[in-house]
Amino acid sequence: MKIYFAGSIRGGREDAALYQQIIAFLQKYGAVLTEHIGDPNLTEAGDDGPTDGFIHDRDIAWLQSADLLVAEVTQVSLGVGYEIGRAVESGKKVLCLHRPGTGKKLSAMIAGCSQVHLICYSNTNELFMQLEDYFANNSGKRK
Amino acid sequence: MKIYFAGSIRGGREDAALYQQIIAFLQKYGAVLTEHIGDPNLTEAGDDGPTDGFIHDRDIAWLQSADLLVAEVTQVSLGVGYEIGRAVESGKKVLCLHRPGTGKKLSAMIAGCSQVHLICYSNTNELFMQLEDYFANNSGKRK
Repeated sequence: MKIYFAGSIRGGREDAALYQQIIAFLQKYGAVLTEHIGDPNLTEAGDDGPTDGFIHDRDIAWLQSADLLVAEVTQVSLGVGYEIGRAVESGKKVLCLHRPGTGKKLSAMIAGCSQVHLICYSNTNELFMQLEDYFANNSGKRK
Repeated sequence: MKIYFAGSIRGGREDAALYQQIIAFLQKYGAVLTEHIGDPNLTEAGDDGPTDGFIHDRDIAWLQSADLLVAEVTQVSLGVGYEIGRAVESGKKVLCLHRPGTGKKLSAMIAGCSQVHLICYSNTNELFMQLEDYFANNSGKRK
């Protein structure tokens, strides 16, 4: 299975260490195409490619080749929203991870989308248990 | 022409007054389906519908019926990114408006997307001149 992991870059890197832990966990289930999202050296400047056009086209090609999009949506990000929108519109499986305890109310566009499987959690133990359940029950079938 | 205007709600309402001015300007060119985005009474709680599912499905139906998506992308918003992604994936015309002077670097997913027409501006006079040019040159044809 190929997994596209989406997390905030220019929207803010506060959760970069968390992204790294999630990516490491997801690698038990498949190849994570966007391992660099968890790289602590990748800053808000978001210079993970020579031009914005290169980054966009590379990431969308990865997204199109993936079996599943997993997005951590707590840190608000325009690019993560864009990737979720493209994945939903093209009928791809989408799993969103959100921490309600941070006080930020999740966008109705994500919380209200029936094509998105939403996992709410407060710590990585809780998250990983729910991810195990998800992969046990959804290994191939759409929610 | 039907125009879907997208701006941040739960991502932050700092630009609500600006959205209202942009919506009023856009109404010279067509019907703006999402006039409530500029409503100063609409807060970050984002309660513009009975449930998130209702808001999502209503807004996506409006988006699908629109001829053009105009999105103000300076205030980072997951929902606005989602709407842009769905519009791009379905081949709809997308116009994004950004104020670089605010210091926030625009997502590579928007700045690097060849299907997005991007207008950068620092004040409404500059914006409205560029919008006039856009509508004079793109009234019906895809960029």
